[in-house]
Amino acid sequence: MAGSSYGTLFKLTTFGESHGTAIGGIIEGLPAHVEIDVNLVQQELDRRKPGQSSLTTPRKESDEVQILSGIFEGKTTGSPIGFIIPNANAKSEDYVHMKDAFRPSHADFTYQQKYGHRDYRGGGRSSARETACRVVAGAMAKQVLSTIGIEFSTYVSQVGTIAFNNKEFFALTDIEATPVRCPDLTVAQQMIARIEEIKGLGDSIGGTVQCIINGVPVGLGEPVFDKLHAELGKVMLSINAVKGFEIGSGFSSLGMTGSEHNDVFLPNGQTKTNFSGGIQGGISNGMPIDFRVAFKPVATIMQDQDSVDQHGNEITIEGKGRHDACVLPRAVPIVEAMAAIVLLDFYLRHKAIHL
Amino acid sequence: MAGSSYGTLFKLTTFGESHGTAIGGIIEGLPAHVEIDVNLVQQELDRRKPGQSSLTTPRKESDEVQILSGIFEGKTTGSPIGFIIPNANAKSEDYVHMKDAFRPSHADFTYQQKYGHRDYRGGGRSSARETACRVVAGAMAKQVLSTIGIEFSTYVSQVGTIAFNNKEFFALTDIEATPVRCPDLTVAQQMIARIEEIKGLGDSIGGTVQCIINGVPVGLGEPVFDKLHAELGKVMLSINAVKGFEIGSGFSSLGMTGSEHNDVFLPNGQTKTNFSGGIQGGISNGMPIDFRVAFKPVATIMQDQDSVDQHGNEITIEGKGRHDACVLPRAVPIVEAMAAIVLLDFYLRHKAIHL
Amino acid sequence: MAGSSYGTLFKLTTFGESHGTAIGGIIEGLPAHVEIDVNLVQQELDRRKPGQSSLTTPRKESDEVQILSGIFEGKTTGSPIGFIIPNANAKSEDYVHMKDAFRPSHADFTYQQKYGHRDYRGGGRSSARETACRVVAGAMAKQVLSTIGIEFSTYVSQVGTIAFNNKEFFALTDIEATPVRCPDLTVAQQMIARIEEIKGLGDSIGGTVQCIINGVPVGLGEPVFDKLHAELGKVMLSINAVKGFEIGSGFSSLGMTGSEHNDVFLPNGQTKTNFSGGIQGGISNGMPIDFRVAFKPVATIMQDQDSVDQHGNEITIEGKGRHDACVLPRAVPIVEAMAAIVLLDFYLRHKAIHL
Amino acid sequence: MAGSSYGTLFKLTTFGESHGTAIGGIIEGLPAHVEIDVNLVQQELDRRKPGQSSLTTPRKESDEVQILSGIFEGKTTGSPIGFIIPNANAKSEDYVHMKDAFRPSHADFTYQQKYGHRDYRGGGRSSARETACRVVAGAMAKQVLSTIGIEFSTYVSQVGTIAFNNKEFFALTDIEATPVRCPDLTVAQQMIARIEEIKGLGDSIGGTVQCIINGVPVGLGEPVFDKLHAELGKVMLSINAVKGFEIGSGFSSLGMTGSEHNDVFLPNGQTKTNFSGGIQGGISNGMPIDFRVAFKPVATIMQDQDSVDQHGNEITIEGKGRHDACVLPRAVPIVEAMAAIVLLDFYLRHKAIHL
Repeated sequence: MAGSSYGTLFKLTTFGESHGTAIGGIIEGLPAHVEIDVNLVQQELDRRKPGQSSLTTPRKESDEVQILSGIFEGKTTGSPIGFIIPNANAKSEDYVHMKDAFRPSHADFTYQQKYGHRDYRGGGRSSARETACRVVAGAMAKQVLSTIGIEFSTYVSQVGTIAFNNKEFFALTDIEATPVRCPDLTVAQQMIARIEEIKGLGDSIGGTVQCIINGVPVGLGEPVFDKLHAELGKVMLSINAVKGFEIGSGFSSLGMTGSEHNDVFLPNGQTKTNFSGGIQGGISNGMPIDFRVAFKPVATIMQDQDSVDQHGNEITIEGKGRHDACVLPRAVPIVEAMAAIVLLDFYLRHKAIHL
Repeated sequence: MAGSSYGTLFKLTTFGESHGTAIGGIIEGLPAHVEIDVNLVQQELDRRKPGQSSLTTPRKESDEVQILSGIFEGKTTGSPIGFIIPNANAKSEDYVHMKDAFRPSHADFTYQQKYGHRDYRGGGRSSARETACRVVAGAMAKQVLSTIGIEFSTYVSQVGTIAFNNKEFFALTDIEATPVRCPDLTVAQQMIARIEEIKGLGDSIGGTVQCIINGVPVGLGEPVFDKLHAELGKVMLSINAVKGFEIGSGFSSLGMTGSEHNDVFLPNGQTKTNFSGGIQGGISNGMPIDFRVAFKPVATIMQDQDSVDQHGNEITIEGKGRHDACVLPRAVPIVEAMAAIVLLDFYLRHKAIHL
Repeated sequence: MAGSSYGTLFKLTTFGESHGTAIGGIIEGLPAHVEIDVNLVQQELDRRKPGQSSLTTPRKESDEVQILSGIFEGKTTGSPIGFIIPNANAKSEDYVHMKDAFRPSHADFTYQQKYGHRDYRGGGRSSARETACRVVAGAMAKQVLSTIGIEFSTYVSQVGTIAFNNKEFFALTDIEATPVRCPDLTVAQQMIARIEEIKGLGDSIGGTVQCIINGVPVGLGEPVFDKLHAELGKVMLSINAVKGFEIGSGFSSLGMTGSEHNDVFLPNGQTKTNFSGGIQGGISNGMPIDFRVAFKPVATIMQDQDSVDQHGNEITIEGKGRHDACVLPRAVPIVEAMAAIVLLDFYLRHKAIHL
Repeated sequence: MAGSSYGTLFKLTTFGESHGTAIGGIIEGLPAHVEIDVNLVQQELDRRKPGQSSLTTPRKESDEVQILSGIFEGKTTGSPIGFIIPNANAKSEDYVHMKDAFRPSHADFTYQQKYGHRDYRGGGRSSARETACRVVAGAMAKQVLSTIGIEFSTYVSQVGTIAFNNKEFFALTDIEATPVRCPDLTVAQQMIARIEEIKGLGDSIGGTVQCIINGVPVGLGEPVFDKLHAELGKVMLSINAVKGFEIGSGFSSLGMTGSEHNDVFLPNGQTKTNFSGGIQGGISNGMPIDFRVAFKPVATIMQDQDSVDQHGNEITIEGKGRHDACVLPRAVPIVEAMAAIVLLDFYLRHKAIHL
């Protein structure tokens, strides 16, 4: 229960530090005898990798996944899938000056205090590089879910205060049309301009990712603690830089009354409105699942900052190197991957309800 | 993994339906040889019970907890604590007319579809009555945490659009000063007036609960998946009617840049600001933990509503009976209980990091 | 993970001490919409209860189970089943003289050292009374398994050195024909005579329980750690007084060579011999599952014994009161219950292997 | 819960097939800030590897472990330890003729039936090669346990019917004195002669491994289900070819009465005898832990055998290739590794009992 595993029947365990030999993981519970296209897995990794556009960090990482087990002749065997993603040849010495430094709003301080010993290079285990492993597992889960009709539409719905509030299911091509991954071209251009502006200042900015899931059968979710939206919330909040989560109407329900907010049933079991976000009582109701995730402005900025080191000395953290002024575009495949992991796990768990 | 258990080392498992014989649970992992005051547990239950003020449902339930094991001569033995809360003599026949009905935005439909068979009386397992068991476990956890200096301040910070945004640690007496459990008397009066107004309309209204936790030692939280705020988010989202969660700055971080949002360290390891909400990289940093939970307007209203039944027939759900126009005041002890359960579990887990 | 839960998808959590208010438990994951006959559950409890024959302790306990939730109108709802078995009005004062005593080969010493505080009355949590809760869950699991053709034959195969080595599937009526629960009448009489002899000496004696399970489908078991026989071994070893476990040929395989021991396949997938005990590579192969459990002579005897107390003083434990000279007959329903719990859990887990 | 993970706080998850790219695993929960000597890990692997003596299969595998994460500057960081052991360049085509064959008493049949698709090369996932990963985790656990005084003595105590029943704690040098790993030179010579004889016949033979653990503190074990010996039993039974397990007196207790079998306490809390095997009520009592594991004669033999294939055709399995006539010598480090994994996990779990 040391924290690097997620899932009950479909389970991912990850390892690896930002500048170690490799990161990787083990995927358990992927159903047997299912075809997996490793190229599709790599494509998802490519959507997450640094250096893919002018909006993201220019740091180059190839992020090539190597599958070591569990897939034989193109199909799953039901045995665990081990995989690694080698780390590119990072110059560890670049980080020696950071050995004792506590960067503001990073995890340097808490890791040092908790463990007493840490790999300080590039954030070590606390680096968002770890999320690449989630993308691998999510990409496989999506392939399995696709065979039962579950599809995802995940996109950037806000950058700073520039918001796109249209909660529709957009096609992947619309989302990929711009590097910011917002399907509305007009809003996307505003977002891109804002990110470029912030980047020019050496600063950073946050935003939200919207996820819509279609085709979810009725019945997924395990009350009372493992409600479907509770698990979705947990995994989203476990992604680096996430500060908030809302399902369906979320915080905006505060401005409504019950008579306005209740989703009236149609005779076919669907509902006229979907303020519930596709989940009632913690169980999917067959309507689209709809949630939103808030990412803070990331802590790494290209400005000098006052801080302290491990010995309590006041230091200056220099704003040099490479960074993402806004991680939202690269967060899209991570959010989608985690959603897929949750959905597949609950799909398998639901099957255990009946003989 | 059927969903009615929470926790790894400190664990609560609950059972029971709204109108069955009793609800109850088993608490595992409460440290041995600790004094537990059962009266304090009952006091927390009394803060959650219906009928405690004119703001809440007039339904009377005594909600008396009976401890069946695990506490001997006033102290924990390290063995599991079994407990029950008998259900008052509910008239089941009152619910026969609801047997086939699907109430809007309740879990009638999803439970029927998922399980194929359900106890329809008063919501059965999906009733918020189940949260009384959480309050029992939380009240014990709070007593244990208090011995190591961890203290909670939980209160209503918003009702509808009436907000109190002062994130301070308020004393219990300030919170209990009004039945709405908002520590600011002026805002509390506005909230009460609004709830009375909504109640008069037979409608319902939502709001937020704010929780501040002081005295949390540095180091609680288990990255990468079991980050402290991720688990807090999960358990809050598992409470009936919750639609959103945010830690620290949360959604309001969207209006800030990284240079504004970063929490600058002081030489003593504390930070000048606390936008992180007391957690960095998923691990507590010693600053107050601060999160906010959004509750939708509850689905039960005293107005007639169109709906369908199990056979697809259109029906009218009559708005009669008893209800809470606003559950926020009664949600306060539930939020606090769940926070205490998470904190104690992570406290115990953290100890396993070192020999 | 405090030790009072067993199972992954079908899960039992128990609580309760020998002389507390009640023992009980929560059963999660029993499939929904299944008829459960509570009378059959009570019948299994009656097979375990003390005082049922001259062979067992004359201590009278009614052991009546009360179901508190999860079964509605005779059928499971998929929600957790809470149950209690009230403890009869035990005179706690009878045990005050035992407060500080460490009885030889009991758990008094280890519980005191581990927890620092214990309910010393009648063994408290370490009493075999706890196994009544296992019988409740097992009796429900057996009803479910019966609908898919899985049946159990469990009997006493050895008392002291008197052995019955015929590993056949015997009918319940044959097993229940004598109070010793050995289906061979001749051997049963020898066993009974031996137990009466040992009882006359105020001593105790051990033995083995044999379990044969027919109708197990091919495929149950989750390598590499959760092999079917590994879990069967664990749960059997978790029963009070158990010292050994063997699957199929077990320890007797040491006298064979591989060419003798290998189970040759028939064209229909069955095997000519069944030294494997129905499990190969940790997965059921469709042949009868066959295992044997060794119980030591129980520690409670009616003879005076030297011992020490909590303060290191030498004391004499007086051999008075009531005891089972041989627990084997009462162990039969416990072994069968635990086997059923394991089988149902693995049946549900196996379903998750395929979409 | 797919079966390839073991442990709660100290946890090992493994992956890999016999003839895939690599096997490997993730170790979670190894305490932070502890020095780990990777050479000692490699030494344990060398004790398990094939080809180490004339008694074992001449198949050459280098079995070199590569640590990918979690150890930084020679010390654990508290983050998961990922590792791989590349498979030597096996000729997959050697196994094509085995594609459809079901070898007697192997897992070919059950894997095919359970998963519908399998890596048939050399047993794939069901190969004992997987146990190398257990040795890696166990070797690290032993280093940690050594710092708190827990030491292991594990050796071959029986080969076929040649038994060495002296349950003492022998030094590693005594155990390693002969390739059969029995510390008594006379018995060892008999065992070696017997194995050579069986090898000459192209047959196989079983035996037992004895494990003695000294220095275990009082208090390890989590009743009622996770009793220390129950978990030891489970993990031993999860090792390939194991058919039986006994703790302390085990099956030999059947020949004793309670008055003979009870372990009388000394004033210092130790016991005069140790029929309990160091565990009472599922909790370690400070005496040496002593258990015995029975391995069947392995299924691979160098004789032709009748069998069937996947299509129900009768075939002959040819007895060619390489095999261990007796796996007991190589089983010693595996048994010891699994015991160490269990002990460290329970050590960490025990700490959670008190604040």
